[in-house]
Amino acid sequence: MLNNKSIFDLLFNPKTVVILEAKEKISFFIEGFKRQGFNLDNLYLISSSDDKIHDIKCFKSINHIPIDSIDLLILSVKRDLLIDTLNEFLEKKDVNFIHFFTAGTAEFDEKGIQIERKIRLILDKYPNTRAIGPNCMGVYSPKGKIAYYASFPVETGNIGLVFQSGDLHSKMIKFSTTRYNLRFSKGVSIGNCVDIQFSEILEYYNEDDEINLICVYFEGFSILHKKEGKRLFQVLKSMKKPVLFMRGGKTKRGQSAVLTHTGSLATSKDIWGAIYKQTPLIEVQSSIDELIDYTYYISSYLNRFKKLKKQIIYPKGKRALVILWSGGFGILATDMLNELGLEMPIFEGQTLKKLKKIYPIKIGSLSNPFDLPWIIHRKEFVELSKAAIDDDIDLVIVETDAWSDMESERFKSYYNNLCTIKDYVESLDKVFVIVLHQYPSKSREILYNMLIQDNFLVYNSMEIAAKAFLKLYEFGKKLEKIKIE
Amino acid sequence: MLNNKSIFDLLFNPKTVVILEAKEKISFFIEGFKRQGFNLDNLYLISSSDDKIHDIKCFKSINHIPIDSIDLLILSVKRDLLIDTLNEFLEKKDVNFIHFFTAGTAEFDEKGIQIERKIRLILDKYPNTRAIGPNCMGVYSPKGKIAYYASFPVETGNIGLVFQSGDLHSKMIKFSTTRYNLRFSKGVSIGNCVDIQFSEILEYYNEDDEINLICVYFEGFSILHKKEGKRLFQVLKSMKKPVLFMRGGKTKRGQSAVLTHTGSLATSKDIWGAIYKQTPLIEVQSSIDELIDYTYYISSYLNRFKKLKKQIIYPKGKRALVILWSGGFGILATDMLNELGLEMPIFEGQTLKKLKKIYPIKIGSLSNPFDLPWIIHRKEFVELSKAAIDDDIDLVIVETDAWSDMESERFKSYYNNLCTIKDYVESLDKVFVIVLHQYPSKSREILYNMLIQDNFLVYNSMEIAAKAFLKLYEFGKKLEKIKIE
Repeated sequence: MLNNKSIFDLLFNPKTVVILEAKEKISFFIEGFKRQGFNLDNLYLISSSDDKIHDIKCFKSINHIPIDSIDLLILSVKRDLLIDTLNEFLEKKDVNFIHFFTAGTAEFDEKGIQIERKIRLILDKYPNTRAIGPNCMGVYSPKGKIAYYASFPVETGNIGLVFQSGDLHSKMIKFSTTRYNLRFSKGVSIGNCVDIQFSEILEYYNEDDEINLICVYFEGFSILHKKEGKRLFQVLKSMKKPVLFMRGGKTKRGQSAVLTHTGSLATSKDIWGAIYKQTPLIEVQSSIDELIDYTYYISSYLNRFKKLKKQIIYPKGKRALVILWSGGFGILATDMLNELGLEMPIFEGQTLKKLKKIYPIKIGSLSNPFDLPWIIHRKEFVELSKAAIDDDIDLVIVETDAWSDMESERFKSYYNNLCTIKDYVESLDKVFVIVLHQYPSKSREILYNMLIQDNFLVYNSMEIAAKAFLKLYEFGKKLEKIKIE
Repeated sequence: MLNNKSIFDLLFNPKTVVILEAKEKISFFIEGFKRQGFNLDNLYLISSSDDKIHDIKCFKSINHIPIDSIDLLILSVKRDLLIDTLNEFLEKKDVNFIHFFTAGTAEFDEKGIQIERKIRLILDKYPNTRAIGPNCMGVYSPKGKIAYYASFPVETGNIGLVFQSGDLHSKMIKFSTTRYNLRFSKGVSIGNCVDIQFSEILEYYNEDDEINLICVYFEGFSILHKKEGKRLFQVLKSMKKPVLFMRGGKTKRGQSAVLTHTGSLATSKDIWGAIYKQTPLIEVQSSIDELIDYTYYISSYLNRFKKLKKQIIYPKGKRALVILWSGGFGILATDMLNELGLEMPIFEGQTLKKLKKIYPIKIGSLSNPFDLPWIIHRKEFVELSKAAIDDDIDLVIVETDAWSDMESERFKSYYNNLCTIKDYVESLDKVFVIVLHQYPSKSREILYNMLIQDNFLVYNSMEIAAKAFLKLYEFGKKLEKIKIE
C-alpha cells in the first residue's frame, strides 16, 4: 500500500488517465489536459457511442483499453450506473485514484445517500484505490499537466487549493489569475468526500515545499466519516503555513442549503469559534472576492521573502502611515482604519519638528495622514515619507489616483518617488500598499498594470487593503503564540 | 433681500461670474465652464499678470471689469490678501454669491481661524451677499452650465450633492458617471462653512423637484455657527426624499484629522446615533465606494417609478429569492444574506410541489437558492422563477457569469429569460438585481454594458447588492414610521 504522500503525488501527477463515459458535454476535461500539455497518448476515453472526441480515439468499453493499471479514472456515468461500473472497473483494472465526477448523490436525496454508502463499501475492499467526490470537478496541477478547464494557466505558483465546491474552485482560479495574475501549485475540488478528506489534503500540502499558502472552502463532513472532525482539527493545529479558511453553511439557513449542495453535515458556530482560536487558521467571510483579495496580499508578501531567501517576518504591530491624494479621502481612511482596529500614530513633538524641517507646509497636513498632493513629485516627498516611517510604523498605505498625462515629468517623478518609498519600506520588512480606486478609464488601467508589473501591492479599496493587512498580522501573532505554547 | 430659494437659484444658475485672481493653475474652472457651455462673454477674469488665459481676456483689476452686479465671484487669492480683497470688492460691486476657493484658513492654524472670523464680520455687513467656503471646490450645475472640471457631464440628472470635501465631491461625480453612468442635478462642495450651512442647501434640495435623491458628506460644524446643529437636525427630520449621509470624523482619531481638514467641530457618535433614529437619513459607512453603490441602487429605483409616473413603493419585507449560476456561490450567498439580515424563504410543501410540476429536477436544487444552471435557457426557467416569486418575495437576485459565446442561441434565450423575469418582478413593484462578478474580460465587459443598457441593476458583489437593498428597505420603513407619528 502506498503511503499518503505517494498517493497524492499520483493524484497530482497521473501518468495515465481514463475518462468514462467520455462525451462532448464533458470535453472541458480534454481541453484542460490539452492546454496543460498532458501526453494525450496516455489519455484513454471510453465511449459507447462516439469513435472520436476532440480528435482522440474512443474505446468501446473497459475491456478495450490496452492498459491494466490506471493512475486516475474520471468516472462520469449516471448515478444509477455508478455502482455496477465501479465494481466492474475495479475487478478488471488496478486503479490508483478515482475522481467521481457524477453528481446527484448524497446532496440530492435518500437514494443518493445509499449510493455513497455502497461506494464506501466497495472502496473498503480495495485499499489501494483512493477517490475524490462524488459531485466534484477534480484536480488542477500545472506541474502534473492536468486541469479541467482550458482557461487555467499552465504556469505554476505557490498556492494550494482545496474546495468543496467545483464552481468556487474554478472561479477562484479564474478570478485570481485575471485580477491579480496569481498562479497555483495545486488545486482540488473534493465534493461530497466519500473517501479523501480535507485533513489528508491539508497534511499533504503542509509538507509540500512548493506551497506556501493554502486556501480552503469547506462546507461540512460526510456522514461516512465521523472521525474526520477530530482529525481535521489536529491537522489544522499543526499547519506551518497560512491557511485562508472560508466556511459555507455558517448560518442556520446556510446549513440547510449545504445539505442540498454537498449533502454534508454542517457544524456549529461555537465549534468553529474555538477552532479559529486554537489553530493558525485565517478566517474569511462568505465572499469569494474577499478570499481572493487576501490570497493576493498574503501570497505576494510571502513570495517577497521567498525571492530574497529570507525568513518570513510578520508585522510586529498594526500602526499605519497613510499618504494621501487629497484631504477628504484621508478622513474616510482614518475612520475606516481605526474602526477596523488599525492605529495611526499622530506626528507631533520631535517627529513633527523633524518633518517641518524637511518641508515647512503652508497648506495641507504633515500629521498622519500626509495630505501633500502639491509636492508628490518632489524629493521632499520621499524624505518626509522616510522620516515618518520609523520604528512606529508597520504599514504604509498610499492612496493615489489615475493620471491623465503619464508622459509628464511630474508623473515620472511621482512614480519614481513611489518606487523609492516602496523599496525603503520593504527593506525594513514593513508593508507597502497602494490604493487605486476602480473605475473604467484607460489611464487607470495603464497605471494599474504598471504598478502590478513593478510588484506593487495594489487594491481598489482602503477597506480591503486594511483588512488584508490585519489578516497577515493576526496570522503572525497566532504563529508566535503557538510557538511559545 | 432675496429669499433662500432665489439666492440658491442664483448660486446654481449664475448669469455673471468673476474669477479673481485668475491664473493658469486654476484654469480647470474655465475648462469646466467651457465644457458646460457657459456664455463666456459673462465670465470675467481678473489677473494682475496675464492678458489672456485660455483665450479669454483678463482684466487688470476690480476697477476694470465693466459690470457692477455679479452673481458669482470665485475668490482665489492668498489668505493674507483675502480680507482686503473682500472689502474692496464688496465696497465697489454688488455680489450675490462668493465662492471662497482659498484654502489654509480655519483648517490650518490659529491665524486662519482669525481670517474666517473677519470674513464673517464683513459678510454680516452685507446681508445680500452669501458665500460658500473657504477651502472648497464650489458648484456643479449642468442646467446652470457651470462646473469646476471639464470631466463633469453636461447632461443633467436627479441627484443632489452637498459635500464638505472638494476631492470627494469630484470623485463622487467622476466615479459614479464612469462606473454606473449616473447623472446629477446639482452639487456643491461647501468647505469650512463660514456662511452657507448644510441645513440651507438641504432645505433647498428638499423643495427642488428635479432632485429625488441627496448625498451628503459631512465633517462638522463651523465654530462660527453654533446654532447649526439644532437647525440641521430640524431640516433632516423634515426631508421628504432619501438622504444618503456619510460622516467623516466618526472615530476619535478621525475627529483630530477633521480639524486639519476643514477645521470643523466634529460631533459625538451618540448624537448621531439618535439623529439616524429620528430622521429618514440613510447612514453610509466610511467609504466613497459604498456611497456610490447605494446611490446607483436607490437612484435607479426611484427613477423607475418616476418614468412610470407612479408613486414610489418601498420594499415591504426583506425576503430574497436567489437564482444561481452554481452551487458553491449559493451557499456563500445564503450565509451572506442571512448574516446581513435578509430572509430566504425555503420552498417546501405546496410551493415545492408546484415547482416540481413545472420542472422535475434530477440534480441541482429547487429550494431557495435555485441551482439550475442546466435549464437557464429554457422556458421552464422563467416559469419556475415566476412561480416562486409570489407574495413572499421582495427581492430577486440573479448571480450570473460572463459568456464566452454571446452569439449562441443558448445565450440569447438565457438573456431573454433574464429580461422576462426582470419585467415580471418589476411589474409587481419588487426589486430585481444581477450580480456579475468583476474581473478583466472582454466578454464580461460586453455583458455588463448590455445589462446596464437594458436598465438592469448590476453589482459585482452579493454583499453590496444585499446591503443596498437593505438601505432602501430601511428608508421605506422609516418613512412609514414618520408618517404614522
